[in-house]
Amino acid sequence: MSMKAPRGTVDILPNDAAKWQYAESKIKDICNRFHFKEIRTPLFEHTEVFQRGVGDSTDIVQKEMYTFEDRGGRSLTLRPEGTASVARAYVENKLFGNPNQPVKLYYFAQMFRYERPQKGRMRQLNQFGVEVMGSADPAVDAEVIDLAMTVYKELGLKSLKLVINSLGDKESRNNHREALVKHFDPHREELCNDCQNRLLQNPLRVLDCKTDRDHPAMKTAPSILDYLNEESKAYFDKVQQYLSVMEIDYVVDPNLVRGLDYYNHTAFEIMSEADGFGAITTLAGGGRYNGLIQELGGPDIPGIGFGMGFERLLMALEAENIEIPLNDSLDCFVVAMGSDEVEKEAARLVHQLRVNGVQVDKDYQNRKMKGQFKAADRYKSKYVIVLGEEELLKQTVNVKEMATGEQVEVPINDIIEMIKGKYLGGKIDE
Amino acid sequence: MSMKAPRGTVDILPNDAAKWQYAESKIKDICNRFHFKEIRTPLFEHTEVFQRGVGDSTDIVQKEMYTFEDRGGRSLTLRPEGTASVARAYVENKLFGNPNQPVKLYYFAQMFRYERPQKGRMRQLNQFGVEVMGSADPAVDAEVIDLAMTVYKELGLKSLKLVINSLGDKESRNNHREALVKHFDPHREELCNDCQNRLLQNPLRVLDCKTDRDHPAMKTAPSILDYLNEESKAYFDKVQQYLSVMEIDYVVDPNLVRGLDYYNHTAFEIMSEADGFGAITTLAGGGRYNGLIQELGGPDIPGIGFGMGFERLLMALEAENIEIPLNDSLDCFVVAMGSDEVEKEAARLVHQLRVNGVQVDKDYQNRKMKGQFKAADRYKSKYVIVLGEEELLKQTVNVKEMATGEQVEVPINDIIEMIKGKYLGGKIDE
Repeated sequence: MSMKAPRGTVDILPNDAAKWQYAESKIKDICNRFHFKEIRTPLFEHTEVFQRGVGDSTDIVQKEMYTFEDRGGRSLTLRPEGTASVARAYVENKLFGNPNQPVKLYYFAQMFRYERPQKGRMRQLNQFGVEVMGSADPAVDAEVIDLAMTVYKELGLKSLKLVINSLGDKESRNNHREALVKHFDPHREELCNDCQNRLLQNPLRVLDCKTDRDHPAMKTAPSILDYLNEESKAYFDKVQQYLSVMEIDYVVDPNLVRGLDYYNHTAFEIMSEADGFGAITTLAGGGRYNGLIQELGGPDIPGIGFGMGFERLLMALEAENIEIPLNDSLDCFVVAMGSDEVEKEAARLVHQLRVNGVQVDKDYQNRKMKGQFKAADRYKSKYVIVLGEEELLKQTVNVKEMATGEQVEVPINDIIEMIKGKYLGGKIDE
Repeated sequence: MSMKAPRGTVDILPNDAAKWQYAESKIKDICNRFHFKEIRTPLFEHTEVFQRGVGDSTDIVQKEMYTFEDRGGRSLTLRPEGTASVARAYVENKLFGNPNQPVKLYYFAQMFRYERPQKGRMRQLNQFGVEVMGSADPAVDAEVIDLAMTVYKELGLKSLKLVINSLGDKESRNNHREALVKHFDPHREELCNDCQNRLLQNPLRVLDCKTDRDHPAMKTAPSILDYLNEESKAYFDKVQQYLSVMEIDYVVDPNLVRGLDYYNHTAFEIMSEADGFGAITTLAGGGRYNGLIQELGGPDIPGIGFGMGFERLLMALEAENIEIPLNDSLDCFVVAMGSDEVEKEAARLVHQLRVNGVQVDKDYQNRKMKGQFKAADRYKSKYVIVLGEEELLKQTVNVKEMATGEQVEVPINDIIEMIKGKYLGGKIDE
């Protein structure tokens, strides 16, 4: 019987989940400072949303989607990336009608891609991402890049490389496209099957090919930067100026293309340069997608965003030996030993402490006194409260501070105020 | 072109997402106090996990699952409920080998059920849930119920009803089952098709039938409580005693059965009794499932848990007119007007404020001065920082406190410390 998680998926167990929580809460705080708001879209969409929104010619749509029919015969697809879903939601919910433009959104979402699982590339993966819709100001491009870089920097990463490029506007892209086709056409037969198709559908993506990257024609391929018209060039210059005043280092790479069809103007990737990070070094990628919202049935509204792999973020933290500060202790453990009445009083006490803000646990394994103390130790409990027959009779408990070994007898009715006040100084861990 | 979210799913837009965040963070705090740790399992499982883990005879497995084949021909199912996935993860990751028993887990997870969408019942729904594995102590049953009730109470709900029942151990269930079959057999033909099947597969669930609930034989059906053997009765008594010392009100309803196959001993539901809450009043449900872990290929380890609908939680808060305290203001808005140099300085300032912990936004719509001030108003900005040609020349900014209208000129280099210190008193909203 196959009782394993499906291939390419993993369970995030409590120790790891605590790291995820820490990173998520840091990121939420940064999004708040940048004045981005959260959006949550459904796990699946009508398949067409991704065919149109990601692009029919992409690897994602052609090879990697989890597509299925529901019981009503509709074709649904598990979200393979974030932008198309958010753009669909922006259109359907008419967010373009809000006076507060641009709409600045962020999301945490699982993505699904049917690929050969390997380190840093799972079939179910998690992304943090942002989308800004409604502004064609190059300052937004810089803001979005700034947000991504701020996340990495505040989490402690140092070995980062930001690569940017411009894919230009439609005119620039078309001119470049023609030049690319002209350039690669004599070599068509020498390229891989995928590239032969790309040459017909989206020649720009030939530059992105892993198979053909050593072909001599790659090195001499026409650069998009030589085909930017004046407007596109001015736009790209401004983005770079904004990055400079923010003191964000970057390099321009005209071969940065990104695997999705919808990008124009600014495209960017952030890589880890940490030793031993592995073959896949891209941590985040994004770009501008003016035109996408119209493609999805909305008005002609510009947009830009990025997606950041959460698994890779944690891998990068590990590669740079950055410890996530985790609170793995316990405020209080109640050791109870005796009759049913003692057990009931212990349950009452635990309940009362918890509803008064104290983190507390007790034994549920029928352990003897010694075993209960051992459990308290394993949980790194700061205080142990002991309740037995004798204490119940006297209506007291014994409180032991584990760090000092100091022990005092306290009336049961005073214990909550005591733990809250004197012992924890009001600073209960949250 | 179908550019809507799939039927039975919704987008959670920023205003609502803020409410979700608030409730989630409250719940995480409560879980921490109860010493539960988060687990995250994949969105889908091998279909068999749910067939075995939820039960072949349940409505969920028979009618409501999103099941599909992946590109490798494996049958996968989107998670319809939380317990089977967590139990599978507990077994696969050998969490039973951890000395810290019981393992107390919580999750926030989307669930998928192909039902007719109606208010409070969506095809993609969100649940918070907990599972405790490794203890057969009735105090755990009470703790789990206590946790659920604490969530509702601390979020402010007052009109709550806790219903509990015992389904007994195997022996008790078998005796009751025989009595049920004997009781309903003469009426077999009068019952609905589903119940005729249930009578063969899981007669207990006849008691749960919505179609037949007014059939006279229902009222006279043998009660499980009359068939509990001594051990089961003693167990149920203890659960009730623990609830009583915690001062948690409850009623016992022998017809409370729950729609899943795997329950035994304690079963419970929490309902909203708020006016106008609608037809579906169940907010949360759960129970004990000793035997499930073994069914999924693990050792014979007991467990108990519950699932809490998140959409219904928010509906209940609304029905009781409980306002979620949301921070919808902004710390600071930078109004910039002038040349490219002014724009760049504004971008730098915004960046600097943000990395120094201040929540700040600016205009990206090419608005005139007045429009920018209006935007700051709409965002409920506490401070507006004005930067123009003149200010840039003097290397100052004008800072306006919106609540008082008070305005001061400040050197640009001092503004961050000023906003952080004097104006916000170090209390930047997080």
